[in-house]
Amino acid sequence: MLATVLHGPGDVRFEHVDDPKIVKPTDAVIKLSATCICGSDLWPYRGLQPMGGPAPMGHEYCGVVVEVGSDVRTVRPGQFVVGSFCISDNTCPHCRFGFPSSCEQREFMSGAQAPYARIPLADGTLVATAEMPPDDLIPSLLATSDVLGTGWYAADAARVRPGSTVAVVGDGAVGLMGVLSAKQMGAARIIAMSRHKSRQDLALEYGATDIVSERGEAGVATIKELTKGIGADSVLECVGTQESMSQAVQCARPGAMIGYVGVPHGVQFDGQALFFSQTGMLGGPAPVRRFLPHLMDLVLQRKIDPGKVFDLELPLADVAEGYRAMDDRRAIKTLLRV
Amino acid sequence: MLATVLHGPGDVRFEHVDDPKIVKPTDAVIKLSATCICGSDLWPYRGLQPMGGPAPMGHEYCGVVVEVGSDVRTVRPGQFVVGSFCISDNTCPHCRFGFPSSCEQREFMSGAQAPYARIPLADGTLVATAEMPPDDLIPSLLATSDVLGTGWYAADAARVRPGSTVAVVGDGAVGLMGVLSAKQMGAARIIAMSRHKSRQDLALEYGATDIVSERGEAGVATIKELTKGIGADSVLECVGTQESMSQAVQCARPGAMIGYVGVPHGVQFDGQALFFSQTGMLGGPAPVRRFLPHLMDLVLQRKIDPGKVFDLELPLADVAEGYRAMDDRRAIKTLLRV
Repeated sequence: MLATVLHGPGDVRFEHVDDPKIVKPTDAVIKLSATCICGSDLWPYRGLQPMGGPAPMGHEYCGVVVEVGSDVRTVRPGQFVVGSFCISDNTCPHCRFGFPSSCEQREFMSGAQAPYARIPLADGTLVATAEMPPDDLIPSLLATSDVLGTGWYAADAARVRPGSTVAVVGDGAVGLMGVLSAKQMGAARIIAMSRHKSRQDLALEYGATDIVSERGEAGVATIKELTKGIGADSVLECVGTQESMSQAVQCARPGAMIGYVGVPHGVQFDGQALFFSQTGMLGGPAPVRRFLPHLMDLVLQRKIDPGKVFDLELPLADVAEGYRAMDDRRAIKTLLRV
Repeated sequence: MLATVLHGPGDVRFEHVDDPKIVKPTDAVIKLSATCICGSDLWPYRGLQPMGGPAPMGHEYCGVVVEVGSDVRTVRPGQFVVGSFCISDNTCPHCRFGFPSSCEQREFMSGAQAPYARIPLADGTLVATAEMPPDDLIPSLLATSDVLGTGWYAADAARVRPGSTVAVVGDGAVGLMGVLSAKQMGAARIIAMSRHKSRQDLALEYGATDIVSERGEAGVATIKELTKGIGADSVLECVGTQESMSQAVQCARPGAMIGYVGVPHGVQFDGQALFFSQTGMLGGPAPVRRFLPHLMDLVLQRKIDPGKVFDLELPLADVAEGYRAMDDRRAIKTLLRV
């Protein structure tokens, strides 16, 4: 089949690779309904993350099961499924503790920017719908696989509660999903930090009550002003740079939790500064599998519309243009039709 | 009066200072029933923390009110009181959010290793007992002022739950109070890291179920072994060095919270390592005032006996020997009788 391979910085190729097949009895192979490009794909694309050679890209996926291994019990060919970008068995102690993204058998999904994909540990990873979903819900179901699940985790880790004041650092797709998640969890005030009109508009649509367009010290000062000098009860850090992390810490009131989901690149914390700021932190790869059934339900009941985060839709063959558009910030997130 | 002043590393003097008096209408002056030396007093004593000149020492206290300012409403002369080492108004947004240790009017108490002390913001800071407590409860009531409140906060921040597995890094007085607190919160398994027989014994008495005497990598390996490779649900970090903090992170299972209460000295966290370990963290100066009524009740009902942590009792005049004994680790914690 033809699929997406990153050969080096800026070098995305849509080229021939082997068809995926069942390798272990716990595998499934799915035909993708749609796939997409993740903000984290841009790190190696921009040369900001070392690569060990050409890499099959893509870890967000939904689609129809075409084949399962002999040990697979919970999904069967013909079913529509969504899975997390973290492969997990959903039975180990870490999974049972609510952190399938640290599963003892964890693998990070790859190779999903393709027409077909092999999903290891299918029973633990995939969630099937009762029936084939309508086509217009595919983008939103795809979003649950990573970007929504990650924004949701940021809000969960930041302990957003009904009535609370939430600050969201980062107006990428994950940040926007963080806004949607905070709204679903009942936050009374959601302050989105964003400098881009189209992202501000979507943030407002997803439930943001305030937009702060300043960054750095000025952004922190505005958030402090909006919160009468107190700071936010919960902060969602959805970028992963030293600047954004420091912004998050400074926006947080003492005792607040920061849910941080942007993979930190070059971020250091000073223990004493963090101690005296008295901000709590919980981050890591999002345990999407924990939230998946609930998030898929919300989509299927049309209570949320995370799919709107895809503001560019391309045929899979044009994947390289999808990367370019996101790299140039012409697109928030690119959906690839298979 | 004669009181304790630190003039430089190792130079503790019991010397003449001005008698404390009401400076602001919100102040109280108390006659101390007992006071003590804190592990954190050893940082400047050991020259590991810069000093701006001679410093009046002591921030843990209980005693009888002798005078109050004209605005004080909730305590009156003759009452027995305990207060936190953090002075707080107990009305500001940070106090109401449960973090009086980050009160908008916060001051850190000092000068309590003395016969009398001035307590600012008396209404917000002090908690009075209904009647004069029996003399044998004075050490335990004194402990609630900081060392117990801090250990309790470590367990609270680490979200110890009934049935959970807890690891306590540090066998100083705070670590031992962390063991006691975890037990009170219903932890099923409490693993205390300690190399000293007397501290191991007290940890066991306070509810530790396992003692790990190894440190560093070996200590982590033992805790992993004791928890079937999983790690602890909650970790209490009660030291504040890079080594102890790294031990805490490595003992924690993914999704665990680390409550860190040892003031970090020279501690740096790598953002990416913390992200992938997926451990949560919450620390800072303990919001003791939040816990004080409950902890004082537990003491007055003789349900806990935190006072046992004082294994050396000296007259206040011998305070310098009290520092030496703790510095040499001959004493866990020194109580000073006034």
